Amino acid sequence: MAEAVRHDKTARQLRLLSDALDSGRLGPVRRMVHTLAPAEIGNLLESLPPDKRMVVWGLVDPADDGEVLVHVGDEVRESLIADMDQDELVAAVEDLDIDDLADLVEDLPDAVIDQLLQSMDRDNRERLEKVLSYAEDTAGRLMNPDVVTVRADTTVDVVLRFLRLRGELPDHTDHLYVVNRRHQLIGWVALQDLVTRDPSTPINQLIDDELESLHVDTPADEVARRFSDNDWVSAPVVDDHNVLLGRITIDDVVDIIREQAEHQALGAAGLDEDEDLFSPIRRAVRGRVVWLGINLLTAFLAAAVIGQFDATIEKIVALAVLMPIVAGIGGNAAVQVLTLMVRGLALGQVGPSNASILLWKELRVALINGLLIGLLVGAVALLWFGSWALSAVIAAALVLNFCSAALAGVLLPLLLKRMRIDPAVAGTVVVTAVTDVMGFFSFLGLATAILLH
Amino acid sequence: MAEAVRHDKTARQLRLLSDALDSGRLGPVRRMVHTLAPAEIGNLLESLPPDKRMVVWGLVDPADDGEVLVHVGDEVRESLIADMDQDELVAAVEDLDIDDLADLVEDLPDAVIDQLLQSMDRDNRERLEKVLSYAEDTAGRLMNPDVVTVRADTTVDVVLRFLRLRGELPDHTDHLYVVNRRHQLIGWVALQDLVTRDPSTPINQLIDDELESLHVDTPADEVARRFSDNDWVSAPVVDDHNVLLGRITIDDVVDIIREQAEHQALGAAGLDEDEDLFSPIRRAVRGRVVWLGINLLTAFLAAAVIGQFDATIEKIVALAVLMPIVAGIGGNAAVQVLTLMVRGLALGQVGPSNASILLWKELRVALINGLLIGLLVGAVALLWFGSWALSAVIAAALVLNFCSAALAGVLLPLLLKRMRIDPAVAGTVVVTAVTDVMGFFSFLGLATAILLH
Repeated sequence: MAEAVRHDKTARQLRLLSDALDSGRLGPVRRMVHTLAPAEIGNLLESLPPDKRMVVWGLVDPADDGEVLVHVGDEVRESLIADMDQDELVAAVEDLDIDDLADLVEDLPDAVIDQLLQSMDRDNRERLEKVLSYAEDTAGRLMNPDVVTVRADTTVDVVLRFLRLRGELPDHTDHLYVVNRRHQLIGWVALQDLVTRDPSTPINQLIDDELESLHVDTPADEVARRFSDNDWVSAPVVDDHNVLLGRITIDDVVDIIREQAEHQALGAAGLDEDEDLFSPIRRAVRGRVVWLGINLLTAFLAAAVIGQFDATIEKIVALAVLMPIVAGIGGNAAVQVLTLMVRGLALGQVGPSNASILLWKELRVALINGLLIGLLVGAVALLWFGSWALSAVIAAALVLNFCSAALAGVLLPLLLKRMRIDPAVAGTVVVTAVTDVMGFFSFLGLATAILLH
Repeated sequence: MAEAVRHDKTARQLRLLSDALDSGRLGPVRRMVHTLAPAEIGNLLESLPPDKRMVVWGLVDPADDGEVLVHVGDEVRESLIADMDQDELVAAVEDLDIDDLADLVEDLPDAVIDQLLQSMDRDNRERLEKVLSYAEDTAGRLMNPDVVTVRADTTVDVVLRFLRLRGELPDHTDHLYVVNRRHQLIGWVALQDLVTRDPSTPINQLIDDELESLHVDTPADEVARRFSDNDWVSAPVVDDHNVLLGRITIDDVVDIIREQAEHQALGAAGLDEDEDLFSPIRRAVRGRVVWLGINLLTAFLAAAVIGQFDATIEKIVALAVLMPIVAGIGGNAAVQVLTLMVRGLALGQVGPSNASILLWKELRVALINGLLIGLLVGAVALLWFGSWALSAVIAAALVLNFCSAALAGVLLPLLLKRMRIDPAVAGTVVVTAVTDVMGFFSFLGLATAILLH
């Protein structure tokens, strides 16, 4: 019976499983794990602390081991692999699809790789080596060489007979590829057409030749964009001479899209996307302290700016009270602009052709927001410290810092991108360094010039 | 001929198009637009400032208008719709799939909706009303009622005859659904099996009944997770009585996953995911100033804490120089913990069952990172201001603030989630408010207690 699941299945299962583990009853745990898809088991293992993780890993059906390894982050994968002996590992991975195997192979011990290559037939070994010869994060590395091809000079009936002889098709086969004698791609035929058209229809008439293929060097993020723009389920991969090398399927593209999103979210906080929830302490410390050190440098820079005005602060201590407001709100404004720019760059919507229009728009928004927030903060400062001059100084400093935020938010991501630094990762540190320095400098500088004469 | 595209097609096309627009040659622009998929045209329109956007919109093939409207953000969509008259709009949307139409309908003027409903046949009108009766962001709203069903007591051959009579199948049909007389779902049959199995095979033998279906009330993010965990291309949607209502396809799921990622990235900066790169100034100001106001409140809170210690700062101005370091680095540490928690919550990997283990781990990481950064900052403070006591105070304050960061980073997202506030959106403001307040309080408080006796 098809089972309908109404609510949050994953969370509920994790809770049930955690309870069963706590009570030490492994029978129910094993039964529960056997009902899960490999990706769900991977998700589950990632959510468990190391000791429980190893207990559950021991209960996974060995037939699922390989697929589970494909679906966990690098850190968890290492810990799972460390728990298996060589024969278990070879058995787990030898039946994986070539693209999954290529994804996994660099995490395997050398001895396992050797044994694995020996156990593969020559055909598969050559295919694996071919896939591994392409750069990571390109179409060549993502593709599966297992494709079904047909010739153009035949009929639906003949193709159906051929398929019945061949038996099972690769997962996610929605098209058959039409190639010529030199294995060059001519077009493709939809499985849908094979089942809806008359058996006598010539394949020639069904070929969709408007279709674009992916060159083997296409970067992974461009592959993902093309899939989602064109609603593809699979797409052919070809070389310089249009020779068909393999196909990429939507399930791998969904993984890419998810990983990109994770990379952006975690990268912005200086985290490695493979950081495990339960990373060993030493690893977590090492992973995070570098980022904190970079932020510390920018904090010292800001402190040095404040240090230039210590005589002013000594005379008017209200400046020390208010200065974090100027820097902080400026930082928020800059991150807003930066975030829009990062999205625009990721979608290919922002470039030199429209940067100046964007900058001009953001400067006007900054001016208005700066005036609004500046007036508000000025009013509060007036009520708090009773000084019109101080109130004017902080309002002016805020307007200036909003403009710095707009400039930094628009221009720095473009600059970072040109320097081949990912603005989604480095952007926040850089733009908030600018707004911290400019915020303290404009506020304390104006105060020194206006309040101290 | 299938065309291989090696490099970043989108960015290159945008550049070429922008150049052609600037030169006023609309012929090449029109030809270029006609080669793009509707989603690509949507992306292009979003990247253009309003005046050029309207020029290009006028050049789009009217047959693509509806699909393009489906693929742009709300703000851009409104501006495009405002540019069309009633008949154009009805013509553009009346051929859309029911699920796309349901997505679009609330942005259409009432007069257009009326005319549209009149132009639809009764069957389609009822289907649209059915889909619209389900809550937004649930399986019911995402599904397309257009499904192909077969009976169990027949053979491959009969089904193939039926499909040839029926003609074209709905997009992304990879399975046919097997239902009983009451239209209850019994299982499904893969299109692949229909083309690879012998024509005399009974459908009964091909039914996969292990398959899970989606209940019509399943939330969209759970739908996305189930698709990516199970590598589905399509999945059936059923009601409480297991009656088949429709199907969801991977192309819509890819859109959900992209939108979730955008929502997280933009939400964390207080931006609406529909904010257009070229939003009118007034709209951009309104969209952002609320968020800045919320941040301003927390900034005033931090300022109030500093204000409690103004007498101390007056005597030791070095405190004013160093205090942003304590608060700032504490904020960075908190955002790192928060980011891991938000990911864990989104994946269903974090819950009450493992929160205390995570908290304990994060506190230990915080203690070590706090000591490392504390010693470093203490050493710099000693060199800068020559005071052992000041150096000890800032090191101690940093250790304390790292521990506040760990506490806030682990506990606040759990609390926000329980209060049904999205921690991905509100988390950063809340945790940095804690580290600002605790940073200033611990640093200035310790300084008052130790340095001022």
